Amino acid sequence: MSVPLLRSDRTTVQRLPKRGSYDRDILNAILDEGLVCHVGFVAAGQPYVIPTTYGRLGDQLYVHGSAASRMLKAMKGGLPVCFTVTHLDGLVLARSAFHHSMNYRSVVVLGLAQEVIDPQERGDALRAIVDHVVPGRWNEIRPPSENEMRATLVLRLAIEEASAKIRTGPPVDDDADYELPFWAGEVPIRTTVLPAIADPRLAAGIVIPAHVTGYRLPGGAAAE
Amino acid sequence: MSVPLLRSDRTTVQRLPKRGSYDRDILNAILDEGLVCHVGFVAAGQPYVIPTTYGRLGDQLYVHGSAASRMLKAMKGGLPVCFTVTHLDGLVLARSAFHHSMNYRSVVVLGLAQEVIDPQERGDALRAIVDHVVPGRWNEIRPPSENEMRATLVLRLAIEEASAKIRTGPPVDDDADYELPFWAGEVPIRTTVLPAIADPRLAAGIVIPAHVTGYRLPGGAAAE
Repeated sequence: MSVPLLRSDRTTVQRLPKRGSYDRDILNAILDEGLVCHVGFVAAGQPYVIPTTYGRLGDQLYVHGSAASRMLKAMKGGLPVCFTVTHLDGLVLARSAFHHSMNYRSVVVLGLAQEVIDPQERGDALRAIVDHVVPGRWNEIRPPSENEMRATLVLRLAIEEASAKIRTGPPVDDDADYELPFWAGEVPIRTTVLPAIADPRLAAGIVIPAHVTGYRLPGGAAAE
Repeated sequence: MSVPLLRSDRTTVQRLPKRGSYDRDILNAILDEGLVCHVGFVAAGQPYVIPTTYGRLGDQLYVHGSAASRMLKAMKGGLPVCFTVTHLDGLVLARSAFHHSMNYRSVVVLGLAQEVIDPQERGDALRAIVDHVVPGRWNEIRPPSENEMRATLVLRLAIEEASAKIRTGPPVDDDADYELPFWAGEVPIRTTVLPAIADPRLAAGIVIPAHVTGYRLPGGAAAE
């Protein structure tokens, strides 16, 4: 059961508002396609932006890390954060410098990150993070020990105050510029996956599992 | 002439310090390979993290945007920012959930972003941003008009307080876990470029230029 997205002044797309979206399905699709998010937080007045992995369960995002990390220490008390996921889809080459752009899909989620205390939710969140990156992985690894769980901080951020921003298609030049003798168009950018490389210390007789041989990026690209 | 990087308490890599680097050549290589950065800033106590393009000239980073955008308005007075570039190189699949990781190269630059006023530097910065994304592009487009320059804010951030963080190689599991019957290894991730798509409104007789047909990502990948 999804709650409606809260479109606040803070998340309303101000620059080129037609690129903005507040639809939960669109936001979730962009979030689910990402491997890395960039989390912003403030410590002693200084903003920090840290890349990290994440998972989603319903309307909640989860990130994790060492209980000792600067980011998670600062977040632990329920600090305001900004959670951003960006997919670069293409370079947009216009006839004018001014209208050069990128095709992209991005999501920004604002809110208070809270430490997850409940053991069941902590376990579910870690599984969601691992399986977000490689679906099916959690079932074929050693789960966290009690010591490892103690060393791991899990944080939750509700997807409530959020927006997506999307640009697609060819450049949009000023009318007069379409007569200029300059080439214009798009250079598509894609993220791809190469065949897996076994750990040099892999024990003899261990077969590469289907969740690795059949791995596809969340966006759909399989190994070349 | 590069000034030494200032390794401050704020940029010293605390979590897994052996992954940290403070070498300017290493930082510049990572910065030059990126197409998009994530800029963090604070407005009314709330952190925001916004993806945008950028350029580098020597020890200075430049970002630009509409003079009306929230990010650049907040930055204009010289607000503290965090400028982060991340390259995801691979998924690291360990035998234990705990040692799952990513191979990546990231740079974090902290500092005060300042508005660029000098017309020459503004022009140089815009050229650096366009040519950072597509080298050679600036010479084959219409340069900004006076009105367009008035609508464009250019910001400078010195690369002084900064660090890189790099992980490469196979998973590192606990000694006892190497005997577990689980597959472990790396799934390499790459960014690639597809052949350029001409603007449907391209005027007849315009040939695709060499800077597009020969385009390589800053990291080196050409169109497949």
